[in-house]
Amino acid sequence: MYTEVPGGVCAAKGFSASGVHCGIRPNHPKADLALISADVRCAAAGVYTTNKVCGAPITVDRLHLQDGYAQAVIVNSGNANTCAANGVELALSVCGLVADQLGIQKEDVLPASTGVIGQPMTLTPFEKGVPLAVQELTNEPSGSLQAATAIMTTDTYPKEYAFSFTLHGKTCHLGAIGKGSGMIAPNMATMLEFYTTDVAISPAMLQKALKDVVPGTYNQMSVDRDTSTNDTLLILASGLAGNEPITAPGEDYDVFYQALTAIAEHMCREHAGDGEGASKLLVCEVSGAPDLTIARAVSRSVVTSDLLKSAMFGEDANWGRILCAIGYTPGDFDVSRVDVRLHSQAGTVWVCENAAYHPFSEEEAAKVLKEKEIDILVDMKSGSSSAKAWGCDLTYDYVKINGDYRT
Amino acid sequence: MYTEVPGGVCAAKGFSASGVHCGIRPNHPKADLALISADVRCAAAGVYTTNKVCGAPITVDRLHLQDGYAQAVIVNSGNANTCAANGVELALSVCGLVADQLGIQKEDVLPASTGVIGQPMTLTPFEKGVPLAVQELTNEPSGSLQAATAIMTTDTYPKEYAFSFTLHGKTCHLGAIGKGSGMIAPNMATMLEFYTTDVAISPAMLQKALKDVVPGTYNQMSVDRDTSTNDTLLILASGLAGNEPITAPGEDYDVFYQALTAIAEHMCREHAGDGEGASKLLVCEVSGAPDLTIARAVSRSVVTSDLLKSAMFGEDANWGRILCAIGYTPGDFDVSRVDVRLHSQAGTVWVCENAAYHPFSEEEAAKVLKEKEIDILVDMKSGSSSAKAWGCDLTYDYVKINGDYRT
Repeated sequence: MYTEVPGGVCAAKGFSASGVHCGIRPNHPKADLALISADVRCAAAGVYTTNKVCGAPITVDRLHLQDGYAQAVIVNSGNANTCAANGVELALSVCGLVADQLGIQKEDVLPASTGVIGQPMTLTPFEKGVPLAVQELTNEPSGSLQAATAIMTTDTYPKEYAFSFTLHGKTCHLGAIGKGSGMIAPNMATMLEFYTTDVAISPAMLQKALKDVVPGTYNQMSVDRDTSTNDTLLILASGLAGNEPITAPGEDYDVFYQALTAIAEHMCREHAGDGEGASKLLVCEVSGAPDLTIARAVSRSVVTSDLLKSAMFGEDANWGRILCAIGYTPGDFDVSRVDVRLHSQAGTVWVCENAAYHPFSEEEAAKVLKEKEIDILVDMKSGSSSAKAWGCDLTYDYVKINGDYRT
Repeated sequence: MYTEVPGGVCAAKGFSASGVHCGIRPNHPKADLALISADVRCAAAGVYTTNKVCGAPITVDRLHLQDGYAQAVIVNSGNANTCAANGVELALSVCGLVADQLGIQKEDVLPASTGVIGQPMTLTPFEKGVPLAVQELTNEPSGSLQAATAIMTTDTYPKEYAFSFTLHGKTCHLGAIGKGSGMIAPNMATMLEFYTTDVAISPAMLQKALKDVVPGTYNQMSVDRDTSTNDTLLILASGLAGNEPITAPGEDYDVFYQALTAIAEHMCREHAGDGEGASKLLVCEVSGAPDLTIARAVSRSVVTSDLLKSAMFGEDANWGRILCAIGYTPGDFDVSRVDVRLHSQAGTVWVCENAAYHPFSEEEAAKVLKEKEIDILVDMKSGSSSAKAWGCDLTYDYVKINGDYRT
């Protein structure tokens, strides 16, 4: 149904990208400025952090997306442009630079920033970097990879993904780049995520799809339960796939919505699996829950328990910690029928039945927990709702990375 | 006002205690059974975990405290008696053993357990241990210390405290023993806390005082945001101090309530400072909050942020993480006027003013953060409510302790 294709955000028709070095952080050699540019004005939508401390670029994104259209995204790493005087002015000036260079409206440029909070930032590096980024724009896969690399902070590898799918006989594409290794690492703050698609869809339906996909995907993903000041997910839809534009709910919308869910789930796995210091990806799948809210909350509780995360690092089948995390999940539900299984490509071990010990071989459990991806399967046996959550283990390296970040 | 005295739970008139080894865990040499016994039937009260998975002893405590009176507390470490078949029956049998030995009513015995969840437990070790514990009972300070030692799991030292204070000219005592190094470590589950006092007070007022003190103290204390299945706080009041019994709100109740708050705050510092793997005690004091709920929530957010906890371990004055944690605290409040200062016995550094960088010397900050207790002072400048929260840093050792617990 979805065919993986190369090219990330350059896979969809009408998009090019680049990543360059412009020196946001003095004496820091890493590429730090990414540009995504569309050939046409795109329907566009965004979702943002719920943190009351909020990066200046997000204020500008909200402003520039009021009409539901955009044509370019400009992203810097190295400075979050948060808690800084004149942050909004600066972000607006950056948009102006991009607009001038691309010959588009300033209001069609969406800015994003990630990096240290509360540090002074100036326009100077952008004055050099934006023209360079425009010059480097390409719709080849290399453009997406360069952009994905330029937005990285503590990520250990650039994150990008794209696939094609069919909508009423038309081949469409959906692609993404993203960065973020903690839900937040405020010194190198943030999860940033940028999607491009060539599907023709109205701004209203695009915004609806994005808003509906996030609760079951990004909001179910956590490295450390900290919500960044700069979290941003933006999508641009060029409409160049030639499909009948999606302007209302219906079959076409559902196809697009499923595709959006698929790419979001893929990216969640990437982020959680590359969590700061992580050695394992944890996926908790809850089934048999009385309702969706409880299913989501229970799965989140499990993958965010520091005790369980530490146990998974230690490859210890400590099912009591899973039950405990389920038990302190807010909401009114019965825990007495909970079954828990630990699964990986090495096999499945049934460790808990009806909230009590289910006899299992420690040796087999150890084999299962040796793998890089551990699925924690929770059957609540009290309904038909299900949900997933993505997380990672808690390791020495998490503490190391975050204990000594600014130096 | 409060004069520290030796003796922990044996400091108040009418109480004796002991701690012995009875072999709850096979081949485990540590003392594992504690007994607190009162000369008279005591007004008694308890608060318990809100976890839906709940230890069997808590069920029995609720039952035995229906009449508001008790005369003994029996506590084992090594097994949580949680998620085990016949757990309640077993806890009742243990109460029976104690009652027989002490010549009191079975319904006046309160059980508590801490240790591995979901492991089989039998009466056998108690049959040997309870008579031994009764035989060892003493009202000397050594009795309290032995009891405090017997209930320890991952604690690095036994926790006890007592002070005297004056109530209408009568000298009264309030003492405590406690264990717990994580809010939960389900393998060695739980925070357990036992208070004794010789104040004369009705069961209803005792329960009210306990319930009112917990939200501002124990509920503001966290090592890892995990809530145990067995958390229990019990208090016994012998009434032997000779004060006019407290049976209604008023001046005497207020004096007792303040004393209870003082001992609870002291014990919170002990637990948080001895958090699993902790190298530092963190205390967040919020002032100028619009209301008490927000003050408490903000201070809790700060001391529970893994990112901030890691930064404190690294002695990094990363104030952006404090602001970020404040920003994602639920509730409707303004962050734009927040000031943050870092304080320790080495001095005070003002790091953030009106939610933005306040120039400070990194060298001075490093000096402040070298200390063992770090106070994070947050002034929201938007009201007159204040609150405290207690936590600890996140260290390599936390991961080590919890990554490999059962082995």
